[in-house]
Amino acid sequence: MADLVGNVLVAQSGGPTAVINASIAGVIQEAGKHPDLIEEIYGGLNGILGILNEELIDIQEEKRAVIEGLKHTPAAALGTCRYKIDFKKNPELAAKDMERLFQVFQAHNIRYFFYVGGNDSQDTAHKIHDEAVKRGYELRVIGVPKTIDNDLPHTDHCPGYGSVIKYNATTVMEIAADVSSMATDNGACCFIEVMGRQAGWIAAGTVLAKRTPNDAPHIILLPEVRLNEEAFLLKVQETLAANAFCVVVVGEGVRNAAGEELAADRRKLDAFGHPVLSGAAERVAELVSSKLKTRTRTVKLGYAQRAAAHCASEVDVLEAAACGEAAVRAAIDGKSGQMVKIVRLQNKPYRWTTDLQDLKEIANAERTIPREWLDADGFLPNATFIEYAHPLIEGTLHLPEEGGLPKYVTLQKARIEKKLPPRP
Amino acid sequence: MADLVGNVLVAQSGGPTAVINASIAGVIQEAGKHPDLIEEIYGGLNGILGILNEELIDIQEEKRAVIEGLKHTPAAALGTCRYKIDFKKNPELAAKDMERLFQVFQAHNIRYFFYVGGNDSQDTAHKIHDEAVKRGYELRVIGVPKTIDNDLPHTDHCPGYGSVIKYNATTVMEIAADVSSMATDNGACCFIEVMGRQAGWIAAGTVLAKRTPNDAPHIILLPEVRLNEEAFLLKVQETLAANAFCVVVVGEGVRNAAGEELAADRRKLDAFGHPVLSGAAERVAELVSSKLKTRTRTVKLGYAQRAAAHCASEVDVLEAAACGEAAVRAAIDGKSGQMVKIVRLQNKPYRWTTDLQDLKEIANAERTIPREWLDADGFLPNATFIEYAHPLIEGTLHLPEEGGLPKYVTLQKARIEKKLPPRP
Repeated sequence: MADLVGNVLVAQSGGPTAVINASIAGVIQEAGKHPDLIEEIYGGLNGILGILNEELIDIQEEKRAVIEGLKHTPAAALGTCRYKIDFKKNPELAAKDMERLFQVFQAHNIRYFFYVGGNDSQDTAHKIHDEAVKRGYELRVIGVPKTIDNDLPHTDHCPGYGSVIKYNATTVMEIAADVSSMATDNGACCFIEVMGRQAGWIAAGTVLAKRTPNDAPHIILLPEVRLNEEAFLLKVQETLAANAFCVVVVGEGVRNAAGEELAADRRKLDAFGHPVLSGAAERVAELVSSKLKTRTRTVKLGYAQRAAAHCASEVDVLEAAACGEAAVRAAIDGKSGQMVKIVRLQNKPYRWTTDLQDLKEIANAERTIPREWLDADGFLPNATFIEYAHPLIEGTLHLPEEGGLPKYVTLQKARIEKKLPPRP
Repeated sequence: MADLVGNVLVAQSGGPTAVINASIAGVIQEAGKHPDLIEEIYGGLNGILGILNEELIDIQEEKRAVIEGLKHTPAAALGTCRYKIDFKKNPELAAKDMERLFQVFQAHNIRYFFYVGGNDSQDTAHKIHDEAVKRGYELRVIGVPKTIDNDLPHTDHCPGYGSVIKYNATTVMEIAADVSSMATDNGACCFIEVMGRQAGWIAAGTVLAKRTPNDAPHIILLPEVRLNEEAFLLKVQETLAANAFCVVVVGEGVRNAAGEELAADRRKLDAFGHPVLSGAAERVAELVSSKLKTRTRTVKLGYAQRAAAHCASEVDVLEAAACGEAAVRAAIDGKSGQMVKIVRLQNKPYRWTTDLQDLKEIANAERTIPREWLDADGFLPNATFIEYAHPLIEGTLHLPEEGGLPKYVTLQKARIEKKLPPRP
């Protein structure tokens, strides 16, 4: 393998997480260790969309302390996008975009490209790798996994997942303490909506709040399990009879018996054309209040859960950074068209390492919770799931503070001079 | 003042907070320092409601470490209630309840009664004090303030308030980082609903997340300020034009120009024909999406905010415990019919002490935000408010952990043998 000398470009894509910046820090810090091969380190603003517009920043202009601070800073410090290069939907635009991307790569001698993101982003990375091969443009493309949804295949789990379930499980535990201490009041049914459209990994993770059989969450509604209204209402009644309160975690993508999303509002579509979900917990609470004549309360954590760096998992932060570092080492080693994955070595004590997987085996595949990881009635994950999820929430960061609030960093974003005419 | 020898009864009432248990710990620890006067320390389960049912527990049976652990444990460890002794609504029942209460006090030689709660609870404490005087039953009644709503008069602020605004401001800061990094997406308007039906103290407190003029929250909608739709939509547009994203904090009690609560609108019917009680944030988001044709997201923190002990303010915890201690010292000192209040001595550095206020001046009065603490347009609190609120969120606890989650304590609740026939 001939040494490849040139510049690094790193970018982020898709929904942010509490630890996606830790992966960026990992890429940058590892890239800095190879000055013989890597000349400049650039950040692409707002993922592929910013790169198409030649919006690059000079990472060398950032303070080292800021790069280190990225490891505890939520959201996407470089900005993100949901832009897709879609040859099926719009082949002409996709071809133009691809041409433009390689013009940008060429103009700035980009030889190493790291894209941190979920399914769609890995698909983009895969296409860029294929295109580079086709063009004979020497480029090493490595995907870095990121998604709170935990739905990427082949990796044991995804950076971002441990933190979202640590925060959500903490929140469920705290809300349960509140609701249980109010159990003489008639509002003792609480419905907590969490993210997860297709896969219930996030909702399932709240089971970690359960330390004894009577603890909350009492019921978890997953998108993978069609809602059996009768069985559900019976279980709520049983829980109220036993505990005088009931906490239900509602995955936003929960479906009715006909397989339709309870909360889908098909009038509203996101940039990928998926319906925007809102109010699954409200819908389930309505069902319970109308059928069981009990007062209900709802909580919708929304963006709060994926941005909650103040409650991030230390394991998750370490793994996210390590995935960034491993991506750079793989590229330096001559690899391309791969995604870094996390491999679990053992559970007690938890040990893990990273490896690589072909991007073509990642792109656009989705992993849902195996049915055998759930109880017979489908209302709670079982011991197999708990064994899987528990190590991922271990360890808490002690964040630097300012005025009683976490002190997060922001990049200075010194722009690289554009060399191309504006994108047509 | 003759020494009064007898037993302590402590109970909690109203909505829980992150630090109401710290006040209980303060009462218990201080009471333990006066063995010459205080023979037994009892806890009343579920506030006045449990006391009426003679449901008392023996605090001496609890481990000292558990009592100390109450200082970082959210919700009401003794249970709470919303039960009121209401002479106006039902004078016959109220008289019966009062008679029963004093039977319980007499049966268990209760001579010191500490009630931790908000407006209604202080009203109850006040009535019990008056009744004791009327009956010539030697009883010292001291109220301990508690409410996330921060609406009790005469006290500088209420224990519970600092923690809820620390958590909410942290959450707003994190959500803002997320939304801003997604600002190329068309969902860059986020509406975060927080508690506060009559008073906007909680919503206003999120302004602490703002460190530069462009930071979130960009707009805070308070129940005290009737919503001027036109001015509001204009301000959202201006914010989007300037920042490409907009974060709005919505107090749940926000009112329209006619003075009606937005969230109480009942035009929509669900599948069962019942009115949909959509949240205030949902309603404001609908307004923005329909008028400005921009995509919106909502977050409803609900119970999560008042139970978030993992993000409690250290100042708040110290003050809550100190209020409990001060209540016991006041009672030992011969006082009754008073509530402990917090007095601010100076701001930089923040110094405070406790004092007492007649319960008759507290009960059923509500304090809202002074208009002069808000900007001219009413959309943000000003520097006066910030100076007031900032010291209250200082300091972060490092909670003990178990399996990656906070380790909260629960009381063993050894019941005191009942001496009376059941409540009729």
